[in-house]
Amino acid sequence: MTPPEARQTPQGSHNWGRWGEGDEKGALNLLTPEVVLASLGAVTEGRVLPLALPIKGSTSSPAPTTVPHLRGRPLPQHFMSVDGADYAAGTRPVGAGLRMADDALIVTPHGTTTHMDALCHMWAGDALYNGHPADRVRSYGATRCGIDKAGPVVARASFFDVPARRGVRHLAAEERITVADLESCGADVRPGDVAVIRTGWPLAWSDSPEKYWSGQPGLSAEAGRWLAAHDIAMVASDNSAISALNPHQGADESLDDDLHLLFLWRHGIHLAEMLWLEELSEAARTHFLFIATPLNIQGGTASPITPIAIL
Amino acid sequence: MTPPEARQTPQGSHNWGRWGEGDEKGALNLLTPEVVLASLGAVTEGRVLPLALPIKGSTSSPAPTTVPHLRGRPLPQHFMSVDGADYAAGTRPVGAGLRMADDALIVTPHGTTTHMDALCHMWAGDALYNGHPADRVRSYGATRCGIDKAGPVVARASFFDVPARRGVRHLAAEERITVADLESCGADVRPGDVAVIRTGWPLAWSDSPEKYWSGQPGLSAEAGRWLAAHDIAMVASDNSAISALNPHQGADESLDDDLHLLFLWRHGIHLAEMLWLEELSEAARTHFLFIATPLNIQGGTASPITPIAIL
Amino acid sequence: MTPPEARQTPQGSHNWGRWGEGDEKGALNLLTPEVVLASLGAVTEGRVLPLALPIKGSTSSPAPTTVPHLRGRPLPQHFMSVDGADYAAGTRPVGAGLRMADDALIVTPHGTTTHMDALCHMWAGDALYNGHPADRVRSYGATRCGIDKAGPVVARASFFDVPARRGVRHLAAEERITVADLESCGADVRPGDVAVIRTGWPLAWSDSPEKYWSGQPGLSAEAGRWLAAHDIAMVASDNSAISALNPHQGADESLDDDLHLLFLWRHGIHLAEMLWLEELSEAARTHFLFIATPLNIQGGTASPITPIAIL
Amino acid sequence: MTPPEARQTPQGSHNWGRWGEGDEKGALNLLTPEVVLASLGAVTEGRVLPLALPIKGSTSSPAPTTVPHLRGRPLPQHFMSVDGADYAAGTRPVGAGLRMADDALIVTPHGTTTHMDALCHMWAGDALYNGHPADRVRSYGATRCGIDKAGPVVARASFFDVPARRGVRHLAAEERITVADLESCGADVRPGDVAVIRTGWPLAWSDSPEKYWSGQPGLSAEAGRWLAAHDIAMVASDNSAISALNPHQGADESLDDDLHLLFLWRHGIHLAEMLWLEELSEAARTHFLFIATPLNIQGGTASPITPIAIL
Repeated sequence: MTPPEARQTPQGSHNWGRWGEGDEKGALNLLTPEVVLASLGAVTEGRVLPLALPIKGSTSSPAPTTVPHLRGRPLPQHFMSVDGADYAAGTRPVGAGLRMADDALIVTPHGTTTHMDALCHMWAGDALYNGHPADRVRSYGATRCGIDKAGPVVARASFFDVPARRGVRHLAAEERITVADLESCGADVRPGDVAVIRTGWPLAWSDSPEKYWSGQPGLSAEAGRWLAAHDIAMVASDNSAISALNPHQGADESLDDDLHLLFLWRHGIHLAEMLWLEELSEAARTHFLFIATPLNIQGGTASPITPIAIL
Repeated sequence: MTPPEARQTPQGSHNWGRWGEGDEKGALNLLTPEVVLASLGAVTEGRVLPLALPIKGSTSSPAPTTVPHLRGRPLPQHFMSVDGADYAAGTRPVGAGLRMADDALIVTPHGTTTHMDALCHMWAGDALYNGHPADRVRSYGATRCGIDKAGPVVARASFFDVPARRGVRHLAAEERITVADLESCGADVRPGDVAVIRTGWPLAWSDSPEKYWSGQPGLSAEAGRWLAAHDIAMVASDNSAISALNPHQGADESLDDDLHLLFLWRHGIHLAEMLWLEELSEAARTHFLFIATPLNIQGGTASPITPIAIL
Repeated sequence: MTPPEARQTPQGSHNWGRWGEGDEKGALNLLTPEVVLASLGAVTEGRVLPLALPIKGSTSSPAPTTVPHLRGRPLPQHFMSVDGADYAAGTRPVGAGLRMADDALIVTPHGTTTHMDALCHMWAGDALYNGHPADRVRSYGATRCGIDKAGPVVARASFFDVPARRGVRHLAAEERITVADLESCGADVRPGDVAVIRTGWPLAWSDSPEKYWSGQPGLSAEAGRWLAAHDIAMVASDNSAISALNPHQGADESLDDDLHLLFLWRHGIHLAEMLWLEELSEAARTHFLFIATPLNIQGGTASPITPIAIL
Repeated sequence: MTPPEARQTPQGSHNWGRWGEGDEKGALNLLTPEVVLASLGAVTEGRVLPLALPIKGSTSSPAPTTVPHLRGRPLPQHFMSVDGADYAAGTRPVGAGLRMADDALIVTPHGTTTHMDALCHMWAGDALYNGHPADRVRSYGATRCGIDKAGPVVARASFFDVPARRGVRHLAAEERITVADLESCGADVRPGDVAVIRTGWPLAWSDSPEKYWSGQPGLSAEAGRWLAAHDIAMVASDNSAISALNPHQGADESLDDDLHLLFLWRHGIHLAEMLWLEELSEAARTHFLFIATPLNIQGGTASPITPIAIL
């Protein structure tokens, strides 16, 4: 198990692995204005694709259970505190006749919806990414490496549509994406790119929740190392955990090979999970502009997001 | 009061005022691939500025009350369900040594944080924007004109930095922005632009919450009509209600002049409120790329967002 | 289907079926001071038994899923906003050294934990119990027949321990309790009694959740009518819906025979569901003092409760 | 500051201060069946008085802010997930015509509503009451001294209606109840009694929230010690913190004199706060039966309750 101290020696050509300003942004520090400006060159059509699953929170119906999610997680709840039906039933308008609907959302992002992980989400031992003390992640939030430290992501995407490359609808639950798989996708990966990985696994949900829960395909450790060595800024995938999952919703990798540790903890590479990439797959584009704008949740371990691709 | 039926005649050159595909997107239909592609031309530096207030939800501290908000609204709550302190106190790691932090967020966007309004948020009479029946906005969400119908916003921004133009730190609580104010800002407004309006009012919060609550500056009705006549796609402001507010947190305008009705209900123009525009003001740019990616909350009246400016 | 108007003619000897003060308390009006005083006579030992399931809300563990509940319901969430682990990790004490733990609870009572139904929980047509208009049950709560109208329950209990009578661990999923079953339990039912019905079904949960969800035993319609004819004040059961449930978690009875309509809607008899009655069963007492003190949730459709038996 | 170790020597005649079964119930162990049986003798009229403030959670109205609460605390939220207005607007009934209302509650008990404190709520140093390690109070709940360990309270009450004794509507914000005050109330305090303390301070709320927040009257440390020396089982008061509060909502007592430490931590005496005692005051009874049945929240630091007096 590589200790966090070892990360003081940067793996690539960038220098985010130093203490000081922005050291909690990790690999997102690669997204300098120059890189952002260059990333706009990946846009050719101007078409915008949202890459998020719907958040269905209507708690008196089966709606929340109809969206892909990990078993046993608290699903989103969405409540209206005043709505049109209330006015239909006689609620008085505001002032001279104004009517308004208002609502609230309860969301636990990990495992329930499209989200971005903060660097504080996972670690081993007593230190977070870059040596930040793990015990600063407390009940009132993470004062180190929270999602508020990430900031927006505006980057060129390299798309690895593995099932399309293989000619299958989705990868099988036990499959792990190899370096050869990634290489076969033909992407010209540059430093600061977001690696967008498609497994097609959300399609398993439409077959049955039980199939979705039977395991999940994901990146192999060697493929993860290959990506990190390319100095990417972020990994975004349509599976739930970047890595493959067994039927118990756990990863079988050792700590050395664990992909959350590899990306979040050793390299400061943010992750986004549970994306919806089906329309993106149909577009058959290898590079495009990728944008994710996490909520500024102080000390959050994650944020629900609607990532977008601008083709 | 102009009834929603009258909106069948489009106010501008666009044609979103018809029933059918996308009619719940309102003016966001202006954001065609061609317009999106053209909007990228507004980027010159590649600098990315987030425009959101922090979401501080640590409920055992005064933190949530330290962020600008309307009085009497339920403030965000952010909870950790497992954190680094738990491991410090002896909680067993997952598997061979993996440690993880997990959390949940409760948020009521209107009046408490940076958010985007859905078209179903306000109306008069029995119909929403474009004649959609208001009683389809029910306890389990809006099946018409919810935030899930909006989709992502990628547009050129026209920035109206009124206090900078006037040489003041922020507008006064009772001030209303006029057409002359808007014109003085020198923007070349094009169809599909997002009008970003700065009042500077969040700075009043740092003086005192009581000052912030004493009223709010905002757009006048005539300025609102001027913007709508320019076929903008969206209005985004750093005040809480686009319009000015009185000390009771209400708008003094008649229904005909009410800015929420004008934008959301008559023109299908989405609104974003409670942005943080101070660094943007310092950048002194009139046009840039504006992006907002609301969460895909089915039937939501709003979504918390982190809008960004790409300069 | 008996319309609510017909309830103006009281079924029994009491007179709660009139408009005016207390008409939203329903059969709880039977609990006059004289009846309460008499109910104390049922106490012989002074032993107090709590009759509630645990509320396990720790959302990062499987704990919430280990307590009996109906499928697809949002399970309780319990969060600490500051705790002992935070102090162990270095959080500063309050003032001179005081340390405190604080928390929050999210609960949807129906189908997830021991609770008491308000009279507004179920109805047919447009009127609640006793003709109260159903459209006064709105997003901001029920202004008619909410749990706040119920008040505390202090009553003599008549215990119907049907599985004990039959010599079985629990009734089978498809069984319906008959009048003969009730009569065999030997209770001397008096007006104002709480009928406590044991099915033993929570024990099915310890066999497996799937067994618990395969259906549920419950009262038959005729047994329900028999109880109502005895002018009871309330029914409390250890199953989830008083009535039997099919594998789809629905009741197979017609509207005329539906037990929620029979009790809540026609007779104003409050219900308590999902009690834990195993220690009570061991005590083998037919009468005792029963107490339930719902939270004073204005406009609530239910309240989580810890009912108690004083033997 | 008396360390928790010193509590191994019981202050009174009881023996709850030993490790083993029930040691997390503290002074509630005094409520043996014999004591419970004897407590019923305090009932003479059979009248039942609820002693709870209303929980008003309708978040789109000012309702939640109209109930006494400490400043800056997250107020209750109550949401309907389906209601009568939805049916009025066209929602389809369940099955053949059944209609149902369903809801959810979010509650942070301390400082917002009538509640009972668990023994884990406050401590000094590293140990809870009776030496239980404080770091077992973690994000997923307290595995020591949680409210689930308390169980129901059925006890004789000794009522100290200090403002009635003094002939005032309510005590003044800066007043502290003395031993002489308590003695003047004429109660014959017995081991296992619940001491119910009235300050009348909730009436200050009806004058103005600002008055309520200007400070609070409460027990003096000497009065607290006097009560503890009488081997009471619990203290219940209508103020927010048992002790007096300054305008900053803090207690001015030293750690030695802090009443939460005195009761919860040194003596294992549970507390209930924010009761509504006005009708009880009118009843002018010194002894009665007191019942509180906390929710069985595993690891909770408190539970909202509706305590009752049976006169």
